[in-house]
Formats: sequence, C-alpha cells, structure tokens
Amino acid sequence: MPTDHPFDVDALAADLREFLGERLSTSAAICEQHGQDESFHPCAPPDLVAFAQSTEDVAQIVKLCARYKAPVIAFGAGTALEGHVNAIHGGVCIDLSPMDAVLEVRAEDMDVTVQAGVRRRQLEEHLRDTGLHFPVDPGADATLGGMAATGASGTTTLRYGAMQENVLTAKVVLADGSIVQVGSRARKSSAGYNLLHLLIGSEGTLGIITELTLRLYGRPEVEASGVCAFDTVQNMVDAVTFAIQSEIPLARMELMDELAIYAVNMYAGLENEVAPTLFLEFHGTPASVADDQKRFAEISQEFGGKGFRAASSPEERKKLWRARHEALYAAKSFNPGKKGLITDVCVPISKLAQSIADTRKDFDEHGILAAVIGHVGDGNYHTTLWVEPGDEAALKTAEGAVTRMVERAIAVGGTCTGEHGIGLGKRLFLQKEHHSAMPMMRAIKKALDPDNIMNPGKVISL
Amino acid sequence: MPTDHPFDVDALAADLREFLGERLSTSAAICEQHGQDESFHPCAPPDLVAFAQSTEDVAQIVKLCARYKAPVIAFGAGTALEGHVNAIHGGVCIDLSPMDAVLEVRAEDMDVTVQAGVRRRQLEEHLRDTGLHFPVDPGADATLGGMAATGASGTTTLRYGAMQENVLTAKVVLADGSIVQVGSRARKSSAGYNLLHLLIGSEGTLGIITELTLRLYGRPEVEASGVCAFDTVQNMVDAVTFAIQSEIPLARMELMDELAIYAVNMYAGLENEVAPTLFLEFHGTPASVADDQKRFAEISQEFGGKGFRAASSPEERKKLWRARHEALYAAKSFNPGKKGLITDVCVPISKLAQSIADTRKDFDEHGILAAVIGHVGDGNYHTTLWVEPGDEAALKTAEGAVTRMVERAIAVGGTCTGEHGIGLGKRLFLQKEHHSAMPMMRAIKKALDPDNIMNPGKVISL
Repeated sequence: MPTDHPFDVDALAADLREFLGERLSTSAAICEQHGQDESFHPCAPPDLVAFAQSTEDVAQIVKLCARYKAPVIAFGAGTALEGHVNAIHGGVCIDLSPMDAVLEVRAEDMDVTVQAGVRRRQLEEHLRDTGLHFPVDPGADATLGGMAATGASGTTTLRYGAMQENVLTAKVVLADGSIVQVGSRARKSSAGYNLLHLLIGSEGTLGIITELTLRLYGRPEVEASGVCAFDTVQNMVDAVTFAIQSEIPLARMELMDELAIYAVNMYAGLENEVAPTLFLEFHGTPASVADDQKRFAEISQEFGGKGFRAASSPEERKKLWRARHEALYAAKSFNPGKKGLITDVCVPISKLAQSIADTRKDFDEHGILAAVIGHVGDGNYHTTLWVEPGDEAALKTAEGAVTRMVERAIAVGGTCTGEHGIGLGKRLFLQKEHHSAMPMMRAIKKALDPDNIMNPGKVISL
Repeated sequence: MPTDHPFDVDALAADLREFLGERLSTSAAICEQHGQDESFHPCAPPDLVAFAQSTEDVAQIVKLCARYKAPVIAFGAGTALEGHVNAIHGGVCIDLSPMDAVLEVRAEDMDVTVQAGVRRRQLEEHLRDTGLHFPVDPGADATLGGMAATGASGTTTLRYGAMQENVLTAKVVLADGSIVQVGSRARKSSAGYNLLHLLIGSEGTLGIITELTLRLYGRPEVEASGVCAFDTVQNMVDAVTFAIQSEIPLARMELMDELAIYAVNMYAGLENEVAPTLFLEFHGTPASVADDQKRFAEISQEFGGKGFRAASSPEERKKLWRARHEALYAAKSFNPGKKGLITDVCVPISKLAQSIADTRKDFDEHGILAAVIGHVGDGNYHTTLWVEPGDEAALKTAEGAVTRMVERAIAVGGTCTGEHGIGLGKRLFLQKEHHSAMPMMRAIKKALDPDNIMNPGKVISL
C-alpha cells in the first residue's frame, strides 16, 4: 500500500474546478486552516479544499480523487483532538460545513435527519420547541457528521450513550465514490452486517458520512444538579460504583481532582474545598429526581462524601457547575502561550481510582503539573499536559507520561482512548491494545479502500 | 466464490479425529440434530459434528476446515428461527455447548466473562446471589454465544438494549483459524474500527465467537407489572409513544392483538377482554415504580385505554402476564401437527399501527389465521403462520403474506427483521432493504473469508 501519494495536483484541481467553480480553494490560508484540529499535532495543509453542498458533490469529488489516487480528508468543525484532519499526505480536504440543513424532525419517531455539517448547538436550537433533545455532548460545538465519524461521546454517555448508540442511519460516500445508505430508522434490526457501527468512529478512513439520522429523547421535565467533595478519588469512585449498581439513572457524573479545583478557584475566585469533587446531573420528573438526589446523598455520605449539595433552579445549577465549566479556561490561563497535549484513557471502573493515582504519581515524579478531569461513571478521564512551543525536552517528558498512562490503562483491561480517537496520536497504542485484531482491521481497510486514499495514515498505518 | 463445497470428508474426518477423538461424531442422528434450528426450514445435516471444549479446539477445527475448504457452522442451542445453523452445503458443525463455563463475575465492574456455550438461564442462576442480572431475554434458553452471533434482543430491549449494547468483548476465531480479541471492558472506547459490532449479528459468517464479556445491571429493587386493553392498536401505540417521549423508563411493553388474546383465553380458560392488550413491566425503586405506574395509568386513560391494572406482588404479576406467557402454547394447540412459519419485522413506531392493520387485512384476505404479538416500544412485531407439512399451496400462501409484510415494512423505513436475523429465510429481503450496501457487505465477507467456508450461504449469498 502506498504511504505517500504522488498525484497530479494541477490536473485534479482543473477537473474539480470544472464542477465546483468558486467552491474549490487553493489559497494557502484556507489550506492552512483545514490542516489542523484543536490538538498539538503540527499543521499539515491539504493541497486543495473543496466545499461540498450535497452528497452528490462529495461523491463526485471522491470519484475524481480516486481517479488520481489522491488522498481525501473530510472536515467538519476542526474540533478533533488527535490530528484527525491533518493532511499528512496532502490531497483534497472536503469541507462539509456548507451541508448544514436539518432535513426532517419526526417527533413521533423521536428522530431527526440532518446533513453532516449541522453543528451540535444548531441542532439544539432547532429542537428547542419540540420537547425533544439530542443529548450527546462532547463539549466542543462539533458537526454531527464529525461526531459520528469520530464516535464522539462526552458528559452524558452514562445515561444516553455515545454517538454509536444514537445514530440510526447514515448516508456514506465510499472510496470509489459510491453512495451507500446504512442502518435503519427502525429501533432494532438484525438485517445483515452492522456497517453503521463500522463506519462510526472510523475517522474518515473507510468512507465519508454526508447525512445521518439521530435518535432524540424527551426533554426531561426536571434537570437538577448536585456537588459533593470526597476525601479521596477512591471513595468517590466507590460511591459512584454503588450508585450505578443501585440503578440511579444519573445523567452526568464528572470528576475534578484537587489540582483542577485549585486551578479553577484561583482563576475564577471560587471557594470550593480543594478536594476531589464530583459534579452530578439528574434528569427526570420532580418525584424521580427528588428520589434520586436523596438516594445519592445517602450513598455519598456512606462513602465519606463531605456533604452533598443539591440544586434545582437554573441559577443554582449554573453556580454549582461553574467550576467544571471554567476548567479549560483556568488551565489555559495558567499556561499562557503553551500548547496543550490533550489526552484521555478509559478503564474498567474498578481500576479507575488506582489509574488516576498512578498517573498523578507519575506526573509528580516528572515535574508535570496537569489536572485530571473525568467522566467517572464511564471510567474515562482526561488530562492536558502543557508544553512551551519549541521546548523539545518538555514535549518528550509529556509524551513519555502519556505513553505510560496509556500503557497502564491497557494493562488493566482499559483502552488507549475513551473518546478522543486514534487519529495520528494513538496509532501505536492502538496496535498495542488490539494487536490480535490489527490484521482484521487492515483487511477491512484494504477491501474498502484498496488505494488507501481515505484519510491515509490515520487510525491504522498501512 | 464457490457456492457448493466439494471436499474430502473422510480425510478431514481422519484429521479431526486425531485430536478430537470421541468428540467428533459422524452419526446420522447427531448430524440430523445439528442440521436445523426451530424454524420451518428443512433439515440440512452437516457431514460431521465436532464438540469443542476450548477456543483452541475451535481454532484447530477451523484451521483444518480451511485447509480442506470445508464449510464450518457454529452451533449453540439450536434455537434460531431462520435456518441459521442448517448446513446447506454440508461441512463441519462445531457444537459449542461443552464450553459452558462462567469464567469470571466482576461485581464492581458489573460485567461477566463466559464461554460461548453458557445458556441464558444458567447465567441467570449463576448471578442469583450477586444482586446483578443480565437482562437480554429473547424467550428461548439460547446460548450467549448464539445470542451474540445472531444479535438477539427480546422483551427488555426498550430499557436495556439488545446484545449489541450488552457485549463488551468477544474472543473470535476467524476463517483462517486465527484467534482475535475484540472490544474492551472499558465502558467506552474510540480505539479503531468497531469489529465487535461487525461480528455481533454476523451469524457465524465472519467468525465464531468462543468467549464473551457481558454487561450486567443492578437487579431492580422493585419489579412491577401492568396490563391495559385498548380499543384499537393505534390508540395503544399512541399511548406508548407518549410514554416513551415522557421518558418513563419502561422495562417491557408487549402487545397482543385480539386474536392472540382470544386464543389464549380459549387455551388457558382466561377471561381477558378480547381487545388489543398491552403488558407492561416497571423496574426501579418503590418510589420510582409507583410514580411510573401512576404516570402510565394517566397516559393510557388519555389515549382510550380501558382501565390500567397494576400489580406488584410476584403472584399478581404472574397472573397478569399469564396470557403473554401462554401465547406460543395457545397458538401451537390450535395448530396441532402444523409447522409454524415464524417471522418478524420492525418499523418506525409512527408506522406500527398501520403496519399491523395492513398485515391483518392481508391475512384476512388470504384466509390466514395468525395472531400478532409485538415489542411495541421498539416497533417490532411477530407472527406465526401455520402450515400443514406437505401442503405446498398453503406454504405458498403463507410465504406470499410474509413477503408482502416485509415489503410493506421496508417501504415505510423499517427493516425485514427486528431480531430473528437473516439466516436462510430473509436473504432476498436483505438485498431489497440494503441494496446500496450489499457490495460493501460482500467486500467485507470476501476479505475476511475468501474461501467462503464460514456458514456459507447465510446472510449474503455469494
């Protein structure tokens, strides 16, 4: 398989311009803009950027790229975190952001069909008066196509699942430019191979998602919050484990460690106790939420919680959650001008407290100052290691710490990434985690993209 | 690709016997027994039956079959419904039922690792004292490996999901005899292609699942029931739709139409009102279940329900659900000696009432007497058409009715099977439903099983 891609850029550009006209850009600024996401991976601009307005546009662009054996990279909002969109072999970036139509809301079926370029907040706005909502929330205002392609999840996964559980159908353009429809609007189907889930999280290496139908949920009558500090992360995890076993249907359960709380206090003038702190959200009816809050308060007390504070009014909730929402800004403000090496792992919940403790110890031993924030109910946690641009020694130290963090996670039955994906940054870790399955992944990639034109070099290095 | 499989049975048998000894059977009775499931598809016995005791056994058997290019068919409990195990090209049936060890329950992580031959009720029994349960319930006492391979679901899918949502990892033997581990015990992972979901529901055509880790749930503190008859199926579906939009976390929601109720009344001497009837189950705490029952009672009244009866004690619940549990026996008792052509479809819920009405009308026009039973919250319904063995005209009539039922389901955005799978019976329908995706399915099959030895002729006909 080719690893670099010599192709005739000018000839391809001429062919593309013929039907795209102004919607093909060769401007260096535009290409730069499309050559990186929000990660620390260096910008790798594509040769050309094509703005697609329809599935047929995408199919036509891919067909031409296939003819020239030129790389094709799909681009949404550019909010990925592992270099997913960086055009390391050049080629054509297809910007799907003009495909931003919400095509159909079916309130009775509780689903919605959107073009891939619709953003999460735009959909939220669109659904405002329907009594329905789409709950997957990775934080960033990503496009829904990008969220599907990277298998995004976030703070509400515990209750509502990740993208995988919430995409019902997808229209996809494959490496030969053919258009396929996968999945079903029926809530269950055992009809044939699950191509939908193969494509979700494949990061544009098997096909480009251009349209998707998403599952919606009734907007909860009541949304309430709670905050509770704990002596130790272990106690917090024990409380959370017991709450899950007790089937308390928590909507969000977010961990911030001491360092994260300290940073936010300093940044925003807050006075939270500097201790591992759990932020909770409850969705339901007035009766069920009151019951859930009461049960959780009892559990937290039993496991050494330092007092559970509940809040139901929007103002109170905002106040309680403020520390969590300010976390990224706080971290950035303490590291002006630095680049953040953002990473995540996910482990079985019984291993979470030890995993975080080991990571903290490793950071301390290497003089790394980095807070830990986590989706504790899923066993998933994040950290950002700040590095001065150009400081190769610091970068090496940070990369070493990430490597050890990931290796420890894999060793206890966890995964090298819970939600950020493989992209460029975790290809070697993928091979460590799934060594027996790599030939199967490669066989599928080769069968569906024999010339390796779809986002080449990402996920699996061929 | 070969569609029939000439191979040297005697030479393969000799090679297999060398390491399997007594665990290889050539007995006609054993082969017959392994040549069919619970469907109407005629028995097609394999040439040989191999009883596997370990993943390594399975790998070794598949390796030998690969050398001889002989078909390999995995067999669990034989409870499938579309001819999944019928050895239409002969070959070797691998019976996994000796692999029935529950390997490890991890209460803290709420998961369990089992060999593929463990049966659903055996696991239930094993978990009795843990406070945990595995909720996927297709009715039959299937093996968990078989349930994963066919993507089983059932009455609790609404609340707990199907096999897809509840298998965390699988050990799988591929067509070349290699052993791969897919998935992760971490609750979330975005590490590479989702091979796990590709294998779940692939019906043994891409690999043989030998071991799996399943997600467990806290056993609900309270399980309560409810029954409510409605004037029309449409009113019932409207009530159910509203209940789901209101996020009432119902555990089961089963529909029986008038004919099903009538048959059960006759069979078991019950006195249920002959009307479309909804059977419900609520899981939760005393407070949440009382709240859910109250809310559902109000909703059912609003949508023309004929009085909601609640029940919480085990005896009351059993009494209320008796009609549902007796349904299959009732149907069988009215059709002595006949073969049941069992089928299912699944449609978006807004189309469910019309779909059932159209099916009823079609049955009436063709003189078919068949009840409809459904997992109404999922839009999934079942029917069994009874045919006298040898009555070709009746079989043709029944098959015609199934064809029209499936085609109508596909036409309204539904699927040709919600949970029974493709097997032999629905291969043509799969092509109708997923015509644009068939080349992609075929490319994957060809990449992973180039000699077409894994359960050949099933799912996709090559």
